[in-house]
Amino acid sequence: MQTAAEGHRSKKYILSINCGSSSLKFSLYHALSTNLEWAGSITRIGEAKAHLEIRDYSHYLLEHHDKHYKNFNSAVTEVIAWLKDKQEKYPLMAIGHRIVQGGPKHFEPVIITDELVKTLDEMVYLAPNHLPEEIATIKTFQAAWPDVRQVACFDTCFHHGMPSYVKDYPLPVTYKKMGLMKYGFHGLSYEFIMQELAKQFSPVAEQKIIIAHLGNGASMAAVKNGFGVETTMGLSPLGGLVMGTRSGDLDPGVILFLLKQAKLTPDELDGLLSTKSGLKAIAGISDIRELLQAEPEHPLAKEALTMFCYTATKYIGALAAAMGGLDMLVFTGGIGENSAIIRERICHELGFMGIELDKSKNKKNELIISKSTGKVSVRVIKTNEELMIARLVCSVFNYAIKQ
Amino acid sequence: MQTAAEGHRSKKYILSINCGSSSLKFSLYHALSTNLEWAGSITRIGEAKAHLEIRDYSHYLLEHHDKHYKNFNSAVTEVIAWLKDKQEKYPLMAIGHRIVQGGPKHFEPVIITDELVKTLDEMVYLAPNHLPEEIATIKTFQAAWPDVRQVACFDTCFHHGMPSYVKDYPLPVTYKKMGLMKYGFHGLSYEFIMQELAKQFSPVAEQKIIIAHLGNGASMAAVKNGFGVETTMGLSPLGGLVMGTRSGDLDPGVILFLLKQAKLTPDELDGLLSTKSGLKAIAGISDIRELLQAEPEHPLAKEALTMFCYTATKYIGALAAAMGGLDMLVFTGGIGENSAIIRERICHELGFMGIELDKSKNKKNELIISKSTGKVSVRVIKTNEELMIARLVCSVFNYAIKQ
Repeated sequence: MQTAAEGHRSKKYILSINCGSSSLKFSLYHALSTNLEWAGSITRIGEAKAHLEIRDYSHYLLEHHDKHYKNFNSAVTEVIAWLKDKQEKYPLMAIGHRIVQGGPKHFEPVIITDELVKTLDEMVYLAPNHLPEEIATIKTFQAAWPDVRQVACFDTCFHHGMPSYVKDYPLPVTYKKMGLMKYGFHGLSYEFIMQELAKQFSPVAEQKIIIAHLGNGASMAAVKNGFGVETTMGLSPLGGLVMGTRSGDLDPGVILFLLKQAKLTPDELDGLLSTKSGLKAIAGISDIRELLQAEPEHPLAKEALTMFCYTATKYIGALAAAMGGLDMLVFTGGIGENSAIIRERICHELGFMGIELDKSKNKKNELIISKSTGKVSVRVIKTNEELMIARLVCSVFNYAIKQ
Repeated sequence: MQTAAEGHRSKKYILSINCGSSSLKFSLYHALSTNLEWAGSITRIGEAKAHLEIRDYSHYLLEHHDKHYKNFNSAVTEVIAWLKDKQEKYPLMAIGHRIVQGGPKHFEPVIITDELVKTLDEMVYLAPNHLPEEIATIKTFQAAWPDVRQVACFDTCFHHGMPSYVKDYPLPVTYKKMGLMKYGFHGLSYEFIMQELAKQFSPVAEQKIIIAHLGNGASMAAVKNGFGVETTMGLSPLGGLVMGTRSGDLDPGVILFLLKQAKLTPDELDGLLSTKSGLKAIAGISDIRELLQAEPEHPLAKEALTMFCYTATKYIGALAAAMGGLDMLVFTGGIGENSAIIRERICHELGFMGIELDKSKNKKNELIISKSTGKVSVRVIKTNEELMIARLVCSVFNYAIKQ
């Protein structure tokens, strides 16, 4: 039986907003069921031709065009205009935003108030390359729909229960007081995967699981007994694995070299580590699909791919050791979901840990790609951060209603 | 039967010089047998009371005193004066020096020429915190014994065969051309351990071995089929494991935070990462023995020890994954050789990899401390960098004689 509140919500919609580094994803869900109505994206924002595409729940193309958006805000403005046209058909109950950094005090999604926006403004120094655009996006949506409540869903919450010897850096406590600690990211993706696993696999709460979210940004999380206990990214999304344009963790002596010998300024260093490192620095190409195409003829493409897979292999070993074993390995994210050859190369040397892929199942991107004889269950699960945002928005309002 | 050259050498001595960050070790060996004549050390150089101690091969105390040495050179000068007094008794055939950094072109020990000193001077930027003192020490010995040949034994040589996807950083190639790559350190210790293992254990060439050199500076090496294929330190000795006063590898975003938010200068950052990070930053104490004593009453000492052991555990997982398995784990260095409790904590969660310690053997620092049922042989082997230097000096001259 529906309550009055549920009946009200069932006719309304939740909009999920996910700002990436050069892309914007926006999806509309029914407020009660979180069933998808349609999903859109604008990719390559800032480049000569960005691409907008909106498809309905049955994948039918509702809208698409190529166009230059000079910055994030012009892309957001276009999405708002498109939605405003249809607001009678799609009345909004709430808007959920993926927010990269929740800082040391946010452990769950929260309704966005003026005070929260102020707090986010004060936290910009913790994520200077991502938070300003996300805050601006919140404000643009607030101006467009001042009466619709908005929810901040933090990408860091999933990891907040990590033990202090994992979260703290071995640096003087004065910096910790400024917020310097390991936060971890991709939390919405990890939470979604855990929900999917719970559907597929009941005793997930007693398992030692590594989730490998491999995309242009890439990280892994170690989940023990249902809790995130370790992850590869740290204070920032630059840490951990080698990525498309980011280096991952480094010997700090490398940074001292870049500052003192190569005479980079802090801003130059930031630009280098965010956009000119990783696979791009090795091969001039940051995209794994392009690297795989180039590999047969380009030794540097091969080198970049080897480095990517080797680093991932090492981190699987490290995270398994951190948990004292491994029962399940889940691949997700653009690369993790779609590239059988990358999964194969990453797992190739891990037979000693009980990881054995079934080549044919792996090639077909099946749900379970490990051999039945392998001790570790290896899975491929498509992530869905926008749906996770919608679910979190629902849970925030359910909680609010029950109070 | 001795050759004439060997007969000549047998009456002479090799002096091994090992400069640490605040200590100087100097040992005298018979040139032919590399049997120890005596071994000395000056510790806590720069502090109010440094300690000098010299013991003969039977551990009999020849000399000891506490005294202030204002810098490294004053300690070196004292050693030279002591030796000059006895040079008729101990005629020197050669002097071997541990040199922290061999740069991209030195893969084996070399006789020190004016040209080599020039090369070392040019390489100071690769190891600005260590090389200047080591070069000064070479020059002081050259001035004292201009006719005695000196040999540079590089701490990086052991790792020079690591594959390019391990040695190269995912950073633009322009920095690699300046010498920015992963070198790894503690190579003299690793080479010594491999020689000891070869004596103890014949099929060492087909094994997957992790050597954990745990001291105030700490690193691990992965050795596969006799070759170093991975190590935890990188361009500098700041990388890898959490250490007494060094942080180990970091998310580069942490350094950007320290530069941009905490407004540290590159020199302040260098000082912080070299001398004020690691265990000292967590607990105010950098020494593992002191931390273990403080642990029952001081939560931060417990936290620092947990972080140290946890990081070591993770790296064992990472290095095993890098090799595709593990046959043997060797503990060495001051902590690795002497602290049963630290070894136990590091190995505690690694049963899934076949690492199982025998508690009683571990407590007694026995050579083999794993259970007979454990898949991985875990050993404790005392390292001896000074003896390794003497052996390398011999090998350089044997090679020179055979030419």
